[in-house]
Amino acid sequence: MTALRSYVSGAWHTPPDEGAPVHDAVTGDQVCRISSTGVDFAAALAYGRERGARLRELTFHQRAALLKALASHLREHRAELYALSARTGATKADSWIDVDGGIGTLLSYSSKGRRELPNATVYAEGAPEVLGKGGTFAARHLLTPLRGVAVQINAFNFPVWGPLEKFAPAFVAGMPSLIKPASQTAYVTARLVELIVESGLLPEGSVQLVCGEPGDLLDHLTEQDVVGFTGSAATARKLRTHPVIVGRAVRFNAEADSLNCSILGPDGDLDLYADQLVTEMTAKAGQKCTAIRRAFVPRERLAEVSEAVRARLERVVVGAPGAAGVTMGALVSLRQRDEVRASVKAIGGELLFGDLDRVSVVGADAELGAFISPILVAGDPERAEPHEVEAFGPVSTLLPYDTTEQVVAYAARGRGSLVGSVVAEDPAFVRDVVLGLAPWHGRLLVLDRTDAKESTGHGSPLPMLVHGGPGRAGGGEELGGVRAVFHHMQRTAVQGSPDVLTAVSGVWTAGARRADDGGHPFRKSLAELRVGDSVTAGPRTVTAEDVAHFAEFTGDTFYAHTDEVAAAANPLFGGLVAHGYLIVSFAAGLFVSPEPGPVLANYGLENLRFLTPVKLGDALTVTLTAKQISPRENADYGEVRWDTDVTNQDGESVAKYDVLTLVAKEAG
Amino acid sequence: MTALRSYVSGAWHTPPDEGAPVHDAVTGDQVCRISSTGVDFAAALAYGRERGARLRELTFHQRAALLKALASHLREHRAELYALSARTGATKADSWIDVDGGIGTLLSYSSKGRRELPNATVYAEGAPEVLGKGGTFAARHLLTPLRGVAVQINAFNFPVWGPLEKFAPAFVAGMPSLIKPASQTAYVTARLVELIVESGLLPEGSVQLVCGEPGDLLDHLTEQDVVGFTGSAATARKLRTHPVIVGRAVRFNAEADSLNCSILGPDGDLDLYADQLVTEMTAKAGQKCTAIRRAFVPRERLAEVSEAVRARLERVVVGAPGAAGVTMGALVSLRQRDEVRASVKAIGGELLFGDLDRVSVVGADAELGAFISPILVAGDPERAEPHEVEAFGPVSTLLPYDTTEQVVAYAARGRGSLVGSVVAEDPAFVRDVVLGLAPWHGRLLVLDRTDAKESTGHGSPLPMLVHGGPGRAGGGEELGGVRAVFHHMQRTAVQGSPDVLTAVSGVWTAGARRADDGGHPFRKSLAELRVGDSVTAGPRTVTAEDVAHFAEFTGDTFYAHTDEVAAAANPLFGGLVAHGYLIVSFAAGLFVSPEPGPVLANYGLENLRFLTPVKLGDALTVTLTAKQISPRENADYGEVRWDTDVTNQDGESVAKYDVLTLVAKEAG
Repeated sequence: MTALRSYVSGAWHTPPDEGAPVHDAVTGDQVCRISSTGVDFAAALAYGRERGARLRELTFHQRAALLKALASHLREHRAELYALSARTGATKADSWIDVDGGIGTLLSYSSKGRRELPNATVYAEGAPEVLGKGGTFAARHLLTPLRGVAVQINAFNFPVWGPLEKFAPAFVAGMPSLIKPASQTAYVTARLVELIVESGLLPEGSVQLVCGEPGDLLDHLTEQDVVGFTGSAATARKLRTHPVIVGRAVRFNAEADSLNCSILGPDGDLDLYADQLVTEMTAKAGQKCTAIRRAFVPRERLAEVSEAVRARLERVVVGAPGAAGVTMGALVSLRQRDEVRASVKAIGGELLFGDLDRVSVVGADAELGAFISPILVAGDPERAEPHEVEAFGPVSTLLPYDTTEQVVAYAARGRGSLVGSVVAEDPAFVRDVVLGLAPWHGRLLVLDRTDAKESTGHGSPLPMLVHGGPGRAGGGEELGGVRAVFHHMQRTAVQGSPDVLTAVSGVWTAGARRADDGGHPFRKSLAELRVGDSVTAGPRTVTAEDVAHFAEFTGDTFYAHTDEVAAAANPLFGGLVAHGYLIVSFAAGLFVSPEPGPVLANYGLENLRFLTPVKLGDALTVTLTAKQISPRENADYGEVRWDTDVTNQDGESVAKYDVLTLVAKEAG
Repeated sequence: MTALRSYVSGAWHTPPDEGAPVHDAVTGDQVCRISSTGVDFAAALAYGRERGARLRELTFHQRAALLKALASHLREHRAELYALSARTGATKADSWIDVDGGIGTLLSYSSKGRRELPNATVYAEGAPEVLGKGGTFAARHLLTPLRGVAVQINAFNFPVWGPLEKFAPAFVAGMPSLIKPASQTAYVTARLVELIVESGLLPEGSVQLVCGEPGDLLDHLTEQDVVGFTGSAATARKLRTHPVIVGRAVRFNAEADSLNCSILGPDGDLDLYADQLVTEMTAKAGQKCTAIRRAFVPRERLAEVSEAVRARLERVVVGAPGAAGVTMGALVSLRQRDEVRASVKAIGGELLFGDLDRVSVVGADAELGAFISPILVAGDPERAEPHEVEAFGPVSTLLPYDTTEQVVAYAARGRGSLVGSVVAEDPAFVRDVVLGLAPWHGRLLVLDRTDAKESTGHGSPLPMLVHGGPGRAGGGEELGGVRAVFHHMQRTAVQGSPDVLTAVSGVWTAGARRADDGGHPFRKSLAELRVGDSVTAGPRTVTAEDVAHFAEFTGDTFYAHTDEVAAAANPLFGGLVAHGYLIVSFAAGLFVSPEPGPVLANYGLENLRFLTPVKLGDALTVTLTAKQISPRENADYGEVRWDTDVTNQDGESVAKYDVLTLVAKEAG
């Protein structure tokens, strides 16, 4: 029987000892043995930190491109991962959530990284803050990657998605990961890491793997490391109070199982509600931290819901993944089954469906595999247990409620959840429930006849949405697009002159030096263009005829441009003014460089503000300054953002905005 | 001798017992007695949570307006606060930082709240995420106020700024505060809270005060409360591991003293460096968690720096605040002086200036007051102590370095700081130091000859910038403008149909129902206008003549609009296209309602993207939809943001953007 290897300090490590056995959830056969004996945790962390320097040299876009390549590589090896996954008790549909969900998360972060972050190594967040009236002192929030290792301690239920959803944002941020999978399914994660390492795509040190006990791993953490944990609330508490995590204020993020609820509204669609509930009960045999544990239904609809859910549960076929007709696999282990049985007893209440001790099983031996029947419990919402005891298996409790206010209060008795859902049509009910539940939830899904076809379901965290919840759910936050990238970076307010802020952030800051060497910056390719390159053009006088003509030509005959008497009465203008669109059009006429050249297109405009009305006879001057340059990794052009400042004859800014262009990397 | 009162559950509570004495830092006289005996902490928290409902009914703008009114009220009572503050050992300049700094923080949050948040009770963060291709399923991150109490546990050094910088963002978020000041200076905070309560401006329950020991306060926290702590790292560790904070995943933010550094560059201005260092050493007698503890200078400049700093320290006059010529006051207590003395001894090294045991004192008895001389220590940067032992008084250690790399590594040995500063002119040095230090710092200030006049200084946290740092500094984050408001809110990803997202967030979401009742929405005042009100106008054909004319009229003769052959070679267009500015100008001509009416002005435009090239002969249609409505609290108009979608004859979007307008609250 092979022992799982760890991958630390750039090499595969085979444990010298026997280790502990890991069993097939379906057959009870031994799959492998697991042990972390001999792993030098301090060295592994130091190695990651040292190699992190190479990762940090890459830009966000370069890292994002590597994620995409990695996703393609893993997709080619899906079959292998599915086969291993089946041994954990997962059906093909379950594995799809885990494997394809994980690969999809890589792709999502690849896409977000390219679209929402610059092609740079640091990120300037938000607008600059002007701190002095003279314009010599300002500030900007800069995000830089932490210099440590992102240690992830995962749960057993998603051995592929779990590591990848934590790895992807860390990698985009520029932080190497050290993965510690749960023992029960570590063999799937180990193969995943083998595939990553074999691909040779990532800078060495970007990913390490420790199979087995975490030993003294946490003792060697520093202020620059982060820990991401998914698992039980009890373990989360233990880790959170680890003396090194506390003493060094190590960033610690927990995502713990919670008593998620699904609320049927008085007018909610019964089929939608029952279908979703049964899906959540049976997917991964209910071993999802986002599964529905508490099913709240209007008291008067209790009977019909119970009937509908039972009818659906009757059709669930439990058995070996892959065996004909099987729709629900096994729990991960016999021990897990014992825990589920004990938890259901602790919840109390009549079983509306299922039997804790008996289940018919297809394609496997019911005695050897960790099979259990789906269980629907009739709960009393006034008792504490349904809100506090989680059975981490195919188990939900049906709970009646009488009023909107009451069900909102019941939901809060879960003391913080990852997700809740509402199945209703009435907008007022939906609004009250969503706003009532929001402070207690990281995610809320409203299912109705409009979105049902496209709904991704109660139980599916999505990479672009935050995942995590307050209180019992751990108080953490993962995913949410680039938010999770920033969880791996330090936010620093940098104060200094605009020149300093420009030099440090790579983004031109108002007040910084401009380079106006006479050459029009639109004639420069990305190879030649520098942040701060600028052109000033004008003046052009805006005549009464210009405004009258523009009104007539465009049809924009708003009275402020056409009716002297009415315009004089406008509290903001006090007289005829030029159209804002005329100002930006004239500005473009001034700053444009007409002949074919590196500037390919103006694809947009941002943050336009009209600051001072332009009166007839005012003379406009425009200054355009290269603000941010982001070459694309996989194209022969990139994005250039231009600070644009249109001033009048008194030097007052009349309009400020950013012009967005695509510019070729090389001239002609 | 009066005992300080607490303000809990809507009433002033006088402790029934004697309590502990609090002494005047200057004279040693007893100022008051302090005790929390008899305070029902569970009831106070419950009261705050219950009364929080009223606070949450107000909008962000309404809360912001109250902050402004409160600031005015407090400003009228500055003299009182200054007088009390002097008894803590603070000079007038010190009190200015504390009192005026605190009032300024209220004003900053008032302004940010009005400018950066909508006039609403919830905040929709970021762009909607489209989750289904059919457009029926999307998501949006919603921030809602936590339903608990913001408990603040403050340090002694800023009895006014400390409570106010925590209160302001909590209040804007809609969370009531419970203030627990440090005993040594609680009498200043108590008067502050009296002033707040006396003002009658805030909804009852918004602020509570507990003077004295915190008793079992933390035992009654729930998942919806937050704790903000400022103080020692040791206390931070103790609080962070409190079983209720851990068990309920209570949000806990710590801001702890740190070994902040200031680095002089090889070419840095000596006067700027020495002036800032001495200011930081002596302000609040060095009792600032942001003070400079480690002064790094190039080895070859050690002598000149030492000389310059000593010359300045010679001019420091220690004594009673307000006494003639006094530039540095007392430490807060005799015990604090003992701690400073012990810490200096622990740091080790020759004293370049000052005497631990003797100091000449003006206007007070040197034996009775907590006076100490400023102390400059000659440190060895290779030893651990200068990087680890903090003397919380007028003490800095001068440390030599040889290379940029080395000083960056030395700075990191502080293991996380609130702030660092760099005094240098060379941009390359500045960039290397700032990027090297950033992962270890919450704030970095670059001081040079350009920004020196306007610099707010190393030691001053600003409300618009984050305050806090990793590792030793506590790993927390406060302030930073609206970021700190969001620290008091739960982020929830809400998934549903665009109609549901619109109803819940109050912001129209693409795909949601539009109301097009025939009445032009520009004819509606804010009183009549509803989110979703829309108008569709067009089509208008863009002719070859239009494009040629626009080019000639505006001067924008970019080849893609004027040169058929060159335009055909453009990889993105493949032929002549209309100007983007022509598209938005024609769109305005289509959607405008010319006569005077409630729409006062178009003040800007956001997120414009040109999505499909407009060819000659294409016909444009525009749909304008009211997206977000924010009436102003103190004006007879407000902001309306309009979703704008320009489509071609095939229904493809050619441009999308938001039009920003000012609209009157009432018709005509």
